[in-house]
Amino acid sequence: SMNSDLQDYSHKRLNILTGEWVLVSPHRAKRPWQGQNEEVSNQKRPTYDSTCYLCAGNTRINGELNPKYEDVFVFTNDFAALQNDSKIFKKEDGLLIAHSEKGICKVVCFSPDHSKSLGDMDPKDITKIVEVWQNEYRELGKNKSINYVQIFENKGAIMGCSNPHPHGQIWSQSTLPNEVDKKNTQQLKYYNTNKNSLLGDYLNQELKKQERIIFENESFVILVPFWAIWPFETMILPKRHQKNILEMTEKESNLFAEAISVITKTYDKLFNTSFPYSSGIHQSPTDGKDHSHWHWHMSFYPPLLRSATVKKFMVGYEMFGSPQRDITAEIASQSLKELIF
Amino acid sequence: SMNSDLQDYSHKRLNILTGEWVLVSPHRAKRPWQGQNEEVSNQKRPTYDSTCYLCAGNTRINGELNPKYEDVFVFTNDFAALQNDSKIFKKEDGLLIAHSEKGICKVVCFSPDHSKSLGDMDPKDITKIVEVWQNEYRELGKNKSINYVQIFENKGAIMGCSNPHPHGQIWSQSTLPNEVDKKNTQQLKYYNTNKNSLLGDYLNQELKKQERIIFENESFVILVPFWAIWPFETMILPKRHQKNILEMTEKESNLFAEAISVITKTYDKLFNTSFPYSSGIHQSPTDGKDHSHWHWHMSFYPPLLRSATVKKFMVGYEMFGSPQRDITAEIASQSLKELIF
Ligand SMILES: O=P(O)(O)O[C@H]1O[C@H](CO)[C@@H](O)[C@H](O)[C@H]1O
Ligand SMILES: O=P(O)(O)O[C@H]1O[C@H](CO)[C@@H](O)[C@H](O)[C@H]1O
Repeated sequence: SMNSDLQDYSHKRLNILTGEWVLVSPHRAKRPWQGQNEEVSNQKRPTYDSTCYLCAGNTRINGELNPKYEDVFVFTNDFAALQNDSKIFKKEDGLLIAHSEKGICKVVCFSPDHSKSLGDMDPKDITKIVEVWQNEYRELGKNKSINYVQIFENKGAIMGCSNPHPHGQIWSQSTLPNEVDKKNTQQLKYYNTNKNSLLGDYLNQELKKQERIIFENESFVILVPFWAIWPFETMILPKRHQKNILEMTEKESNLFAEAISVITKTYDKLFNTSFPYSSGIHQSPTDGKDHSHWHWHMSFYPPLLRSATVKKFMVGYEMFGSPQRDITAEIASQSLKELIF
Repeated sequence: SMNSDLQDYSHKRLNILTGEWVLVSPHRAKRPWQGQNEEVSNQKRPTYDSTCYLCAGNTRINGELNPKYEDVFVFTNDFAALQNDSKIFKKEDGLLIAHSEKGICKVVCFSPDHSKSLGDMDPKDITKIVEVWQNEYRELGKNKSINYVQIFENKGAIMGCSNPHPHGQIWSQSTLPNEVDKKNTQQLKYYNTNKNSLLGDYLNQELKKQERIIFENESFVILVPFWAIWPFETMILPKRHQKNILEMTEKESNLFAEAISVITKTYDKLFNTSFPYSSGIHQSPTDGKDHSHWHWHMSFYPPLLRSATVKKFMVGYEMFGSPQRDITAEIASQSLKELIF
């Protein structure tokens, strides 16, 4: 049974992974929307677009030719934010502090079919993407200057995605980005005190309560985290304590692909649109150290609030104060759960 | 002279106020944009709109009548995210942690003229807004359950602003929001060690370098912070060490209003459009304790990147890793400086 105070009164919830809070204002969910509406294109895309720089056989902006790939295709980002041959320096002039940062940025095309997105793909095809992520995480991580590998996807124009061809990215670098650093600290603190995985213990609580779980198979759970920021934010969590995606068995990789398929299909049903989001996998650093405290997970941060055209704006109070949401994690989880299958 | 490595190679810069980093990729500024373009309306608005719930004399959504106000008008938000008569509780069930949060949310209409924005207003009219901010900060802060007062503005539809009538908001509450908490910690640490204001010392460095200063009057400086996240982010800083806006003399209030006028006018010139942004004032908590470490400041976070229709998306890597920017703080500061007067 849902805790009714949390559905009625303003409160803040602690994100145990970052140590930060989200402000929840359930009574505000009824406020009418008079602001900007997003444009949606529910237009079906062709399976091949001769002007797309990600389609098989096409030429990219820098003149390189894409191979006639048949499932997944990875290449180094033509406009990489991080470069591996970059100059190394540390400049610390009083309160002006800058450190060089090296890295390798890649693009992962999920399918040669321009019209597809993860929600339209078979789990067995998604498994091929998972295998590429595993390879990239392993191989990039071997690089002496790469200590962290961030796998992510921006889906939809509203999420700054500049090409609708199904693809994700991998930015790998020397140091831990802010969000990873916070999660590293919080998980380590908990592990040192409790000798248990923070997310493992959290998952046990969620499995008992069943208030925010939307799907479960033998090895994975999809849930709306108690501290979710985005209206329909979700997380895919391995039930076993695993530091990173290399610890999955082949069977688990299939079950992970199934979970990705389930959540993306469910999202597409929610507002009857190709659902935009940023997704990402947080996992252990690749610096060769022991990271027993890490429990990897994949999160989806979708911007839509109440329809295909009305999104949640993280502005003003959110930028200067804390993230804020109206609809609670429990209501969001119910809505998603009802749409599965 | 600008440090050339910082204009050529990927690096991260430390935000001394939050302790977090921003990734800077100067070489990437040349990448072509193929993503979503924003809609702009450069349409002139009427001075009065009978359907606007903020115009003087009009009826709001909840049936209340706005007075025929002549300069600034404040009222309690009809859809407040925080309420002062809210229930108090602390729920800590293992890793599920939620605390009730009380507060008062207000709306501040900057002018009865529906067509205006801060950039079109006289500094002497902006001074009236500053006075209202001072009153609200003082009066809200007297409330036993209000320990922090966040003053902010969302300007433009692209920033989730649901009504173009010139207005800002004030959300005040019992505890420190995340961003304020970080700044509180960093300033306190520095003050305890150095017996000086962190931002005061930073400002002295910036005044010597003159690389990121875009405007200066007797009491205030406008600069692009070394660690700026948004492409044209700026900060207005009082030269004197002041904890909050109540410490300004009348003359300083006028000079602060001048600074607001200068930066908003300059922004409007940058892409020849009514420039969208979220702005906010960070200042000392109102819990009655000593906050000598606080140095108040006003920040502007504008989303536009390279034209009125191309914005910076904080998605994917930014959500899972760290904020990232292409154009450097120094280039941004030059571009803005050239447009002043
Ligand atoms: O209060 P408004 O203007 O309706 O709403 C806007 O500002 C709020 C505070 O920054 C945000 O939480 C909302 O997402 C945004 O749309
Ligand atoms: O790399 P893309 O798809 O061109 O760009 C997109 O993703 C990047 C990484 O999340 C962001 O930094 C950009 O703002 C966004 O537009």
